[in-house]
Amino acid sequence: MRVGIGQINPCVGEIDANASSIIRMIEEGKTEGCDLLVFPELAIPGYIPLDILWRPGFVRSCEEAIERIRLATGGIAVVVGSVSSAPKRGSANRFDLSSLSDGGGIDLFNVAYLIEDRTIVGEAAKMHLPAYDVYNEKRYFTPGPGTGVEEVGRTKIGINICEDLLVDGGPSEVQASLGAEWIVNVSASPFYRGKPVIRLRMAAERARENGVGVVYVNLVGGQDEVVFDGGSFIVDPEGRLLFQAPRFEEGLYVADLQSLRPMEGADEDETAQVRRAIVLGIRDYFRKNRFASAIVGLSGGIDSALAAALAAEAIGAGNVTGVFMESEFSSPESRDDAREVARRLGIGYLEIPIERMHREFRAALPGRAEGLVDENLQPRIRATLLMGLANSKNALVLSAGNKSEIAIGYNTLYGDTVGALAPIADLYKEDVYRLAESLGERIPERVLTKPPSAELREGQRDEDDLPPYSVLDPLLRSLIERNGSREELVANGFEERLVDDVIARYRRSEYQRRQLPPGIKVTPKAFGIGRIVPLTDRYRD
Amino acid sequence: MRVGIGQINPCVGEIDANASSIIRMIEEGKTEGCDLLVFPELAIPGYIPLDILWRPGFVRSCEEAIERIRLATGGIAVVVGSVSSAPKRGSANRFDLSSLSDGGGIDLFNVAYLIEDRTIVGEAAKMHLPAYDVYNEKRYFTPGPGTGVEEVGRTKIGINICEDLLVDGGPSEVQASLGAEWIVNVSASPFYRGKPVIRLRMAAERARENGVGVVYVNLVGGQDEVVFDGGSFIVDPEGRLLFQAPRFEEGLYVADLQSLRPMEGADEDETAQVRRAIVLGIRDYFRKNRFASAIVGLSGGIDSALAAALAAEAIGAGNVTGVFMESEFSSPESRDDAREVARRLGIGYLEIPIERMHREFRAALPGRAEGLVDENLQPRIRATLLMGLANSKNALVLSAGNKSEIAIGYNTLYGDTVGALAPIADLYKEDVYRLAESLGERIPERVLTKPPSAELREGQRDEDDLPPYSVLDPLLRSLIERNGSREELVANGFEERLVDDVIARYRRSEYQRRQLPPGIKVTPKAFGIGRIVPLTDRYRD
Repeated sequence: MRVGIGQINPCVGEIDANASSIIRMIEEGKTEGCDLLVFPELAIPGYIPLDILWRPGFVRSCEEAIERIRLATGGIAVVVGSVSSAPKRGSANRFDLSSLSDGGGIDLFNVAYLIEDRTIVGEAAKMHLPAYDVYNEKRYFTPGPGTGVEEVGRTKIGINICEDLLVDGGPSEVQASLGAEWIVNVSASPFYRGKPVIRLRMAAERARENGVGVVYVNLVGGQDEVVFDGGSFIVDPEGRLLFQAPRFEEGLYVADLQSLRPMEGADEDETAQVRRAIVLGIRDYFRKNRFASAIVGLSGGIDSALAAALAAEAIGAGNVTGVFMESEFSSPESRDDAREVARRLGIGYLEIPIERMHREFRAALPGRAEGLVDENLQPRIRATLLMGLANSKNALVLSAGNKSEIAIGYNTLYGDTVGALAPIADLYKEDVYRLAESLGERIPERVLTKPPSAELREGQRDEDDLPPYSVLDPLLRSLIERNGSREELVANGFEERLVDDVIARYRRSEYQRRQLPPGIKVTPKAFGIGRIVPLTDRYRD
Repeated sequence: MRVGIGQINPCVGEIDANASSIIRMIEEGKTEGCDLLVFPELAIPGYIPLDILWRPGFVRSCEEAIERIRLATGGIAVVVGSVSSAPKRGSANRFDLSSLSDGGGIDLFNVAYLIEDRTIVGEAAKMHLPAYDVYNEKRYFTPGPGTGVEEVGRTKIGINICEDLLVDGGPSEVQASLGAEWIVNVSASPFYRGKPVIRLRMAAERARENGVGVVYVNLVGGQDEVVFDGGSFIVDPEGRLLFQAPRFEEGLYVADLQSLRPMEGADEDETAQVRRAIVLGIRDYFRKNRFASAIVGLSGGIDSALAAALAAEAIGAGNVTGVFMESEFSSPESRDDAREVARRLGIGYLEIPIERMHREFRAALPGRAEGLVDENLQPRIRATLLMGLANSKNALVLSAGNKSEIAIGYNTLYGDTVGALAPIADLYKEDVYRLAESLGERIPERVLTKPPSAELREGQRDEDDLPPYSVLDPLLRSLIERNGSREELVANGFEERLVDDVIARYRRSEYQRRQLPPGIKVTPKAFGIGRIVPLTDRYRD
């Protein structure tokens, strides 16, 4: 059986255009002589429309798109992810408080249709709905009632959806016992560092334990905070990799199941993967929202240099402008470095000194513009300038905040946090260095080596205000990604006083994180939609 | 049977202190001669700790609190809401991607314990977990496996939890068939306009259809965006109201089930309820987060006057400061009105003119500081001043934005939107007027009657930029709360061009809403945690 993997990059909500992309790929698949084409989870609506799923007409539009696709399947079989609806099971609930804005009264299913030669011959509904981290599928979907196998040509396949493959005792087991030779799993699995390895290992084990091959088809593209990395693959019943589609690239990738041979996976290193994830995340955010140009405040430091470099890679250097906004505390090196960054990247460059505005604010706040108050004035003046420039050019501001500073509130809300997108918000400071180093000549040597400083007061250095990043970052990682308790952190060798200080700063800055622009997720636990915490919270462990 | 309703106001995460409040009320209940005391849903952890539920030790702390409470129940029966855990049902899932930060590996239950004379005699786990609007319980909890009845003295009771009572064919039916005379429902039901009536009607119908009385016990207090209004009540098997606890007030309210007689409910009107909800929401946000003072930018207009009045009522006029920040576009009346508002409320008052700062920003953005760019500079300068004042006084800024302007982006991100809390963010402009009118003398007549204006350019008036609020507000209500499609809105008599314009503005301002401070929910659909939408969304209905 000749299988085409339709690794597409849909836009959430753009149902008609998504269907057209799929139909174009179906035509391509016919030309390539495919028997079966597989498109990812929710390929029609995009992953995931969230409450927009409940808009009147949304599901009907998806059904109409399926009808268009059905008509395009002459002589070929297609598996495609979409959403379908049914009246709520059981009697209507008279006191359903999930009103019209909450999809009251209907059951939605996350489905994959099997369409063969213009006939819908099967519909698999996702049985295991994830409701952790960035997933919120139980808000929208009803679990599928059961599973089965389908026949395409003379090959028996079991179709299931994303999380269904992860779960012990999930549908793959039943499908294998019903004679499925291949599990076809349609996924929308967001990237984070290390995720590709986990996915492959997981699919390989499912294949081995059930004695079936697995065709794993993943979405590609950026959607707000998350980036789907594609990298669809096929493993044989011994769990050996047979085929690997490119990562971060849309396309139709064709494989002849009978003639595949075990191969070595060849992925880029994780830093390169992270870079490509962020670049695709920026690019798709701009493209899908019809924005063309970006503005970044360049401080002469590493964070803004990296953010500008990634933006230039994503949307073209000609569409990026860096702005250096000197204060009385800016060192001459900072200006030189900002200029040099702009020059090497080939981006636009502006300088706007903030001293006169700063002076007026100080005069307007007599006796108060000291210490932290004075330090916070400066990034807020810069934010106001950047937003003014952005407003005047229909451009988006990118915030260059990193995860370490966001975690402990070493930033200024409405200051350096402002922007439509925060591309490096999920990179700890050490990751920022690692990624910047990998860019080679694009980042000037001195930007990489000088001690980091916010330059908001005379002689300020990060290292005076913070523990060294080589200590802070592992501590934050344990706290955020491994949910480490105070006790565990101390037991793992972090100094007690440091742990208490970092935890206190981490909690105190929660209200700031509530008001940040979306960051691009590249770790298992990013701030934003996948981490839902109360502001009012007096729990102390 | 003498029942005490422990309508408590716990703080999320403050497990020990919450248990202490409960124990104090148990002592009070003993003095009052109660046989049974009932405390609300999640009374021990507070509703709802969200991802903090997954912190190491959290559930254990709740279990320890239950142990303390158990020891305090000598000679009395107590129903109390908490959280309990069990290892995940079935075998462990080797590929569980819900890592340590997502509570992987354990099942959590939303439970009510029945403790009698120092023995835990029953544990009811919530069966119907809401996952719509502000509810996200399926992220955290596993549904309870079944239900039963308990005996307290010689009275058979069926204990269930919040949503369990709403659902047709929920546990109440089974419990009634098992001989329950009373359903004891422990709830954490947030307020919105009209919700108290819905709750009572719902409980009355459940009582009638099952021939049981219902003791409905609700939480009280503010938690970030939501306010629990208490108003616990008792209905008889004919659905008649027998008892009603005060709304928005913590306390132990005692009723002798045998001697209650049908009564008329006596609630304040809805505008007064909304006022009390917002006041409690502000008060608890400050109190629970240990903040004492607030700063509000006073423009001389109605929104900031109302926000200041509610803040003064919530935390005391002496803890509120109004700041009037005049620009070249401010009318002399605005300054007089701002002063008069401050005088009538008895709050602190400051004036800081922004002209000099404004002039410097214009000079720094040559050729660009025109139109919208220039209009946006002014609120951002004001925001920077307010944040500077707040930083210097350890105070919180309150944002005075209303729901109408937030809905269509008629505001400036990082400008008038800044703050730790937005008390009137869920009031449409017409609701703002209604509520302000109800405050009587506290709001000067002219503030109520002059045409609204942002005063960001010469002669600006809301009515030049927007449709009249008498048209806009009903349209927005249909769009937001009833999820009206374009077609439905036009069919309902809204002018087509207006509908298109409002929908376009509504969508375009989504990214702004992502970065707003929490507002206090008083409608069925507020912006914020109960409305989850993508930023990248090309669906057009």
